[in-house]
Amino acid sequence: MPYPETTTGFCVTDIKNWSKFTKQEVKLKPFEDRDVDVAIDACGVCASDVHTISGGWGSDIPLPLCVGHEIVGKVVKVGKDVTTLKVGDRVGVGAQIGADLTCGNCKADQENYCPKSIDTYGAPYPDGTISQGGYSSHIRAHEYFTFKIPENIEDSLAAPMLCAGLTVYSPLKRLGAGPGKTIGIVGIGGLGHFGILFAKALGADVYAISHTPNKKEDAIKLGAKGFICTKDKDWQEPYKFAFDFIINTADATDRFNLPDYFSTLKVNGTFHMVGFPDNPLPQIQAQVFAPNGCYMGASHIGNRPEMIDMFELASKQNIKSWVETIDISEEGCKEAVERVYKNDRVRYRFTLTGYDKVFGKRA
Amino acid sequence: MPYPETTTGFCVTDIKNWSKFTKQEVKLKPFEDRDVDVAIDACGVCASDVHTISGGWGSDIPLPLCVGHEIVGKVVKVGKDVTTLKVGDRVGVGAQIGADLTCGNCKADQENYCPKSIDTYGAPYPDGTISQGGYSSHIRAHEYFTFKIPENIEDSLAAPMLCAGLTVYSPLKRLGAGPGKTIGIVGIGGLGHFGILFAKALGADVYAISHTPNKKEDAIKLGAKGFICTKDKDWQEPYKFAFDFIINTADATDRFNLPDYFSTLKVNGTFHMVGFPDNPLPQIQAQVFAPNGCYMGASHIGNRPEMIDMFELASKQNIKSWVETIDISEEGCKEAVERVYKNDRVRYRFTLTGYDKVFGKRA
Repeated sequence: MPYPETTTGFCVTDIKNWSKFTKQEVKLKPFEDRDVDVAIDACGVCASDVHTISGGWGSDIPLPLCVGHEIVGKVVKVGKDVTTLKVGDRVGVGAQIGADLTCGNCKADQENYCPKSIDTYGAPYPDGTISQGGYSSHIRAHEYFTFKIPENIEDSLAAPMLCAGLTVYSPLKRLGAGPGKTIGIVGIGGLGHFGILFAKALGADVYAISHTPNKKEDAIKLGAKGFICTKDKDWQEPYKFAFDFIINTADATDRFNLPDYFSTLKVNGTFHMVGFPDNPLPQIQAQVFAPNGCYMGASHIGNRPEMIDMFELASKQNIKSWVETIDISEEGCKEAVERVYKNDRVRYRFTLTGYDKVFGKRA
Repeated sequence: MPYPETTTGFCVTDIKNWSKFTKQEVKLKPFEDRDVDVAIDACGVCASDVHTISGGWGSDIPLPLCVGHEIVGKVVKVGKDVTTLKVGDRVGVGAQIGADLTCGNCKADQENYCPKSIDTYGAPYPDGTISQGGYSSHIRAHEYFTFKIPENIEDSLAAPMLCAGLTVYSPLKRLGAGPGKTIGIVGIGGLGHFGILFAKALGADVYAISHTPNKKEDAIKLGAKGFICTKDKDWQEPYKFAFDFIINTADATDRFNLPDYFSTLKVNGTFHMVGFPDNPLPQIQAQVFAPNGCYMGASHIGNRPEMIDMFELASKQNIKSWVETIDISEEGCKEAVERVYKNDRVRYRFTLTGYDKVFGKRA
């Protein structure tokens, strides 16, 4: 095994052939005192992975690149200053792997907005090493961005919570999801299915908003009180001033008629985006916010307290992600990203598993 | 005098000649039990008046139209169910003159977002009468939208508070302006000068943000702690994560590089617009909200409690609008709207006065 200098990853080497994965060694950052090494057992497949490798969010990506930022595994080594974890712990790593932890944002538990934040893959560490993700045998992570996984949440279901789950849990909490609130979740996919699960678990009334009527049954099973199909003529009319806020998980917002969505918000309500289209948003007049004094915005993952809080809630309420597992391999990675790209029967998240079969037993 | 069936107004009769005012009679709505009639003594000149008569916000306006929605005068008649006002009271009427007062929004003190809201001018009453504004001898108003003016605020200074003042006061309050908060006010004009005055009066640190350095001296006099000129290269760099929120009063937002402004907001901060350009906002990616999880939105005037609260604050702290008075007449109205249109030495608000000279003593 080439670890500990490198990790064996399934890597993309060319964005024109973004679904061709090659198994190869990629360098790990130098091991520091608060780092932990994790032998990976599972990794979720996130739409971000696909946007990144296909160049949708920009063609300037470092290659070879090993993506994956919904990582579950076991700690195999800890730095001498690590206090929160020990060898053998079952842990997760999400979409953020570094921050300065000293700036105003970090001190205010806003490390996900640290200007020196380091993404889990494709980002340079201070020494120049490029971070590499979870379609691989090992990851080296700062303990602050490594989280114990509650016992009753199995690897494959915990994985997608680390990015998709947190990404919707954070705005749900910050915007006040709870009893007495009525929340719209737009887009019933990987993010959206967590939106329904968590908003319901937090005690809110949830309405699923989808462009396709065939998500209705799932939405209700997930806990939605109502289902709204945006293909219906004047779908928004019965929902004027209905929602305290909307979490928009769709990445097709560039094709939305935004004023229709805004009109369903209560006064001073919020249209909050966590799915980012490759294309710009539709152009709008400033006046479209005026009929109810509403807001539009977005967020980027969540912070450490929210991650811990989310896993506690999921553990206590026995919340189950809807996951299909795919064995990791060159073919498995290809199938996963292509089906996410085409939105081909993804209900609602893929987790790569079977790591021991290709990487051997590492912990 | 043709009152009480009509009011004598300086009216626009053609949007192609939008600065040509003609003195003529326009019909008042039927008098109802909670209505009051006000003999007007002063009316502020609002940018909305100019956007409306020049067709900037849409060419479909009812003509002849008498604009003006920053109205101060004396009550000359009250309906039998009026309880909050009596003949002789000095009162103000702002940009809203009607609402159903029974819907969920109205009951929640959000009458400014009532779907049946009636604008002070240019809007149809249920009987078909078009509302007519304050460039005229009288206005007939529902008591709920008519406000006593504190004694120590003179007519010409009270007038612009009724729309411009309230329009910035409402978001300042709702977004939490107060001690410990740092607020940016973009655009030092009619709205912006109130932004600085009120944010300072509420105890916040205020920074004026303007495209022109020649507003600096005024901004500091008005109470700004700092002045930022957006013509300076990389003006936003020293202000990353600086502001709890920004009130954007400019109506040139269609020419802004919005991500620069967003970058000056604290995590989850708000870019709040109260000035509406004729043109759409610049097209943006959803991702521009992500670096600090910020929001963009807008509001429409404010509610009755905020109006009363604003006048109380202004009275207690002796806050003085910066106003230039112009005698009302065909020429006076023309001068006022043309100078607002060209932004020609407006520092920072015009109030039409001298009503007795053209309309006679009416109260």
